[in-house]
Amino acid sequence: MTIDRLLCPLRRAFVALAVLSVGLPSTSLSQVTGRKPPLRVPKEPARLPVPLGPAKYVKEAGTMWTFDAPPLEYWKRTYGFTPDSAWLTHVRLASVRLPGCSASFVSARGLVLTNHHCARACVASASPADTNYNTTGFVAATIADERKCSTLYVDQLQSIEDVTKRIRGAVTAKSADAQVQQRDSAIAQVQDECAASTHLRCEVVTLYQGGMYSLYRYQRYTDVRLVMVPEEEAAFFGGDPDNFTYPRYDLDMALLRVYQNDSPMVVTDYLKWSKSGAREGDLVFVTGNPGSTGRLLTLAQMQYLRDVQYPFTLAAYDRVIAMLNTLSAQSAGNQRKYENLIFNIENSKKAITGYRAGLLDSTIMARKAAFERDLRARVDADPALRPKYGTAWTDIANAERQLTAMAAQTNYYGFSFNPPFGSQLLNWAGALVRIPAESALADAKRLPQYRGDGLARIRQSVLVDQPVDSASERMQLVSFLKSVQQALPPNDPYRSIVLGLRAPEDVAASLLSGTKLASPSARRALVDGGKAAVDTSTDPMIVLARKIAPLVDQVQAAEARLNDVISANADRVGQALFAVYNTKLPPDATFTLRITDGVVKGYPYNGTIAPYKTTFYGMFGHATAFDDKPPFHLPDRWMDQRAKMDLSTPLDFVSTNDIIGGNSGSPVVNRDGELVGLIFDGIIESLPNRFIFTDDAARSVSVSSRAIIEALRNVYESARLADELEGK
Amino acid sequence: MTIDRLLCPLRRAFVALAVLSVGLPSTSLSQVTGRKPPLRVPKEPARLPVPLGPAKYVKEAGTMWTFDAPPLEYWKRTYGFTPDSAWLTHVRLASVRLPGCSASFVSARGLVLTNHHCARACVASASPADTNYNTTGFVAATIADERKCSTLYVDQLQSIEDVTKRIRGAVTAKSADAQVQQRDSAIAQVQDECAASTHLRCEVVTLYQGGMYSLYRYQRYTDVRLVMVPEEEAAFFGGDPDNFTYPRYDLDMALLRVYQNDSPMVVTDYLKWSKSGAREGDLVFVTGNPGSTGRLLTLAQMQYLRDVQYPFTLAAYDRVIAMLNTLSAQSAGNQRKYENLIFNIENSKKAITGYRAGLLDSTIMARKAAFERDLRARVDADPALRPKYGTAWTDIANAERQLTAMAAQTNYYGFSFNPPFGSQLLNWAGALVRIPAESALADAKRLPQYRGDGLARIRQSVLVDQPVDSASERMQLVSFLKSVQQALPPNDPYRSIVLGLRAPEDVAASLLSGTKLASPSARRALVDGGKAAVDTSTDPMIVLARKIAPLVDQVQAAEARLNDVISANADRVGQALFAVYNTKLPPDATFTLRITDGVVKGYPYNGTIAPYKTTFYGMFGHATAFDDKPPFHLPDRWMDQRAKMDLSTPLDFVSTNDIIGGNSGSPVVNRDGELVGLIFDGIIESLPNRFIFTDDAARSVSVSSRAIIEALRNVYESARLADELEGK
Repeated sequence: MTIDRLLCPLRRAFVALAVLSVGLPSTSLSQVTGRKPPLRVPKEPARLPVPLGPAKYVKEAGTMWTFDAPPLEYWKRTYGFTPDSAWLTHVRLASVRLPGCSASFVSARGLVLTNHHCARACVASASPADTNYNTTGFVAATIADERKCSTLYVDQLQSIEDVTKRIRGAVTAKSADAQVQQRDSAIAQVQDECAASTHLRCEVVTLYQGGMYSLYRYQRYTDVRLVMVPEEEAAFFGGDPDNFTYPRYDLDMALLRVYQNDSPMVVTDYLKWSKSGAREGDLVFVTGNPGSTGRLLTLAQMQYLRDVQYPFTLAAYDRVIAMLNTLSAQSAGNQRKYENLIFNIENSKKAITGYRAGLLDSTIMARKAAFERDLRARVDADPALRPKYGTAWTDIANAERQLTAMAAQTNYYGFSFNPPFGSQLLNWAGALVRIPAESALADAKRLPQYRGDGLARIRQSVLVDQPVDSASERMQLVSFLKSVQQALPPNDPYRSIVLGLRAPEDVAASLLSGTKLASPSARRALVDGGKAAVDTSTDPMIVLARKIAPLVDQVQAAEARLNDVISANADRVGQALFAVYNTKLPPDATFTLRITDGVVKGYPYNGTIAPYKTTFYGMFGHATAFDDKPPFHLPDRWMDQRAKMDLSTPLDFVSTNDIIGGNSGSPVVNRDGELVGLIFDGIIESLPNRFIFTDDAARSVSVSSRAIIEALRNVYESARLADELEGK
Repeated sequence: MTIDRLLCPLRRAFVALAVLSVGLPSTSLSQVTGRKPPLRVPKEPARLPVPLGPAKYVKEAGTMWTFDAPPLEYWKRTYGFTPDSAWLTHVRLASVRLPGCSASFVSARGLVLTNHHCARACVASASPADTNYNTTGFVAATIADERKCSTLYVDQLQSIEDVTKRIRGAVTAKSADAQVQQRDSAIAQVQDECAASTHLRCEVVTLYQGGMYSLYRYQRYTDVRLVMVPEEEAAFFGGDPDNFTYPRYDLDMALLRVYQNDSPMVVTDYLKWSKSGAREGDLVFVTGNPGSTGRLLTLAQMQYLRDVQYPFTLAAYDRVIAMLNTLSAQSAGNQRKYENLIFNIENSKKAITGYRAGLLDSTIMARKAAFERDLRARVDADPALRPKYGTAWTDIANAERQLTAMAAQTNYYGFSFNPPFGSQLLNWAGALVRIPAESALADAKRLPQYRGDGLARIRQSVLVDQPVDSASERMQLVSFLKSVQQALPPNDPYRSIVLGLRAPEDVAASLLSGTKLASPSARRALVDGGKAAVDTSTDPMIVLARKIAPLVDQVQAAEARLNDVISANADRVGQALFAVYNTKLPPDATFTLRITDGVVKGYPYNGTIAPYKTTFYGMFGHATAFDDKPPFHLPDRWMDQRAKMDLSTPLDFVSTNDIIGGNSGSPVVNRDGELVGLIFDGIIESLPNRFIFTDDAARSVSVSSRAIIEALRNVYESARLADELEGK
């Protein structure tokens, strides 16, 4: 999903993931093999033998509620909490969206609270040339010192309207293609009309995979200024090791201010500051914009991820990490060069391993199976629903089975893996061979990645003046060829062409010694020379790419067809869910405003109990335990001011709210609608929540409202800002 | 092993385990069933195809070295450390043994440092009637205030002599029974001669299961006085939840003093206090008395524990915990009554689960398999060893296979499980039926538990005036009968007698309504009436016990025979190990003085890194994170004094030394023989070390020497003691 790339994620595990999902091997298949699926076939769920009661909320779907369908009855029953519509409206208007992140209004004069890691671009743009406020921290002493960011805007959700009937009504065609076109143009029309009549930003949100369409109207504020941000060492204390874990000791905050007409904006709906903060057992709500979840994936889809996709991805990570470590050991320059990439891949591995851990957990999967069984039984029991949706799950399972059967081909047929996982030169060769062929076709007939502006982008990427590291290139190519040799049977046609009976090292050596593709001018000559140049080229990379292109195309087309089947049926599953449960179950995350309920609560971990909160004592404890070595080093300012601080002040805390990437910067509010915390991360135990919600050990991690005041008053000595937040 | 019960263990996980191992179901079997073993047969290890190099130290055997065979070459190679014999003698003489624990001399005037939890009995005996110093803490302001303990003595190891030849030489008989007798009397003779000539305490220690015999000579000091002990809240901060975990924040220390002629003893060999304490990466040694390890168990023995014994034990724990929770929910009285027992069982479960986790870890088991393969290959390659030891492993594996085949019978045939896991009344009935029968036999012909003073002890336990809780009794009996129903096939003879076709609840009801055994006088009448009274009794419990006794006896006898086979062959394995590796591998722990090398080092945990140390900041951080609620409550004295403390002082630290229960109170010394720490616990990740040593994440936890000085000076305000320790 492209949204993943837009999100300002919960720290780097998600950043890395988003980055790397782009770089993962693009794979595809020549033909559906006749072989039996090598892996276990997803079992048909047994039908429930007993009569079904009314459809009820089940925990597995999580608690990311939309503001137009708050689960009032569920809240009342669970917490004895009954907010009126004024409460909900107030909290909604105080909660805002930033590009990729969440935030909230926290003063009558336009102060906006979000995470340090959500404001990085803003902070960088507000920094003078010789200083990076992200590192040094920044406190505007007076209103005149607040510094404009060039990159940030703030979207405030004004209203939500259910437009399902209108969108559905527009879809009258019989063919699927025409239906999609009708739907998309109806959506565009609703958005355009809304924008024209309101001057708001209007967005039709597809919920429940098309079960419901909602029009979201936003007011956008574009004059945003940097007010205060702590040093990175305080905001990201513990660094990469502590990322995605708890106990934590981070002041991951930033204060911005929205201006209108060059003056601080007057805000009515802002969150009042809680004096007491979050206490153990408190009911708290998080209002923010979770990016994406996969909770409506069927059991078969999850099994495919668990047994096929993720193992392949993890093996790819391991292969590259091993190679980069080898390169890093060769020189200090290489070490610097690959350090970040290694870290990013390690973090992605951490994330994928966490997702997979949930899918490998038999208790969690049994809950998912029971949920799916219940849903399917309800669909089957309803004469109106059964014909529309009844076969969706088996259709998906069949397609996943075929994908499983051809997994070796979809994973290994290609022009090497994509960099940084494979050979840059062979990737270019593949593009060079395809560019003339695709250019000759009408847009709709092209391979998907060549449609629209794809062709131009690919051409540009081939012509880029980028040096090729020959040591790394050789390793990547050998590594790819070895994978082919291990993963595909000897009589496989792709393997026969690429390797034949030769050793991977020999093939790589002969390709690399003969090719001229490392030279930008050689590549340009091939692009400029068009089909004739490519067809007559004797460059060994081009010769190879010409031979394998038909096989690669075939596999990719077959894979795309199966993915289309899965996608269409996934929509039916979502719609079935909505038809059965309606808004009793919240829809998958869509990077739009949600409200999730939870409780401030520790959890069992590491053989003991994780406390519900940490304090500044613990922060200094953590720093001194590591002898103040980075990333456990605190800024000098903190060391100097510590005698003035009340070290027993709460710093971070955990709660059971249901969050995911995009929720960074979300406010945590109590029953009175007061701000008690600021979401900034999840923990490893939360990763399985992408697919199935649990709160046994999954927790959201927040900065405490009290820590923010304590730090403003006694570390950053900004009574101005502390007073403004506390309404003094 | 009885030693387990004597040990002052590393905290309560071990205490509980020792207690409960006594209470575990005693089980046994009527006959070897003809059924095929239901579980996987241990695989024959493949023989090494390549020539074997010289036998070398392998890490799996750990580092619990004896002082007469220090691995000087290994230390030199690994750490560049080459202690001379003066260093070793000095450290040995400074390291002492307490009942069940370890300790060290730390001043020239007889101060002894050990753990708070090792000095509990001493502290209790030194407390006035109205105060418990274990809880309140105690600091002797002057030498005159030091208070005598009645219960403690200190043993100092004076010398070690290899007496293997003498013991071996005494064994000339052919029959195994006679050999054992010859060996035991040779041991007794060596000990007696030594005691007579030296006035020391002399003990022949069996190492390598008889591969080596060593005479250990101890000086015992019996005038021991309490000098200082912190409050339990500081020593055991974090309580049961944090027990066996890390990071930790405990000042688990006690200072005692040895007196001679009513004056502080003058000590030459005491450990000097390190000023700098333990730093990351430091080589450190722990000198103490590890209680018992099972590293010479064969793979087949470990598999039996993993697949048969431990699962049964864990299921038994779960059954009893569930029952006790039910009882506890019924009244506040019950809750108080069972609280401790539940905790103890939970802790035993934690320990067994940890042991089993190691056995379930394929990497760890692969290391063990490789180690065993190497040892067996060396035995097979040596014409002198092969005939003596070659079959030991397969003999054990065969016996374990038979035990596995009859596991349901050994586990469930009996007079219920032993209390608190089973019915008290049926246990008494079993004893009442057996007492006259066993009394009639010669001692050697009796069941093992009736030999020696066993008969008298069992008679006494039956006659004890102990009330029977009828609710708990009913639950236990029903629970046992249900287990029988579930675990044994319908045609099993024991099950047929006990249950027939009746429901467990009905059988229990009829037994309990008819029996008079809850009355001590009824039991006394049966004991006094002898065989005639038992044979004619119509008490339903007695009638049942009479019927099942022959079956139970048969099973127990068969199980005992197999255990004898395993035990005899385990001795051969130990001797083979010694024959192959000699002292290159340390022997299993024997609660005698060992020196283990290690490094001060954090470890990967919880998705991040555990720091190598904690500080007082962290202690206050932990307390405030839990809102100072017990067991995370600090004594008032600590709260009052904290402004005076340097909170960045190291408190606890971890190292890779190889320790186990019995090592509590051991000193941690640096290359210069200075004291840098005080061992007080292991962590969950250390539990698998009972069987196979690893140091990937297993760590020993110590109190830092610097924490002790900081606390003495600034919390307990005892410059007297701090100065004495620092030699000022």
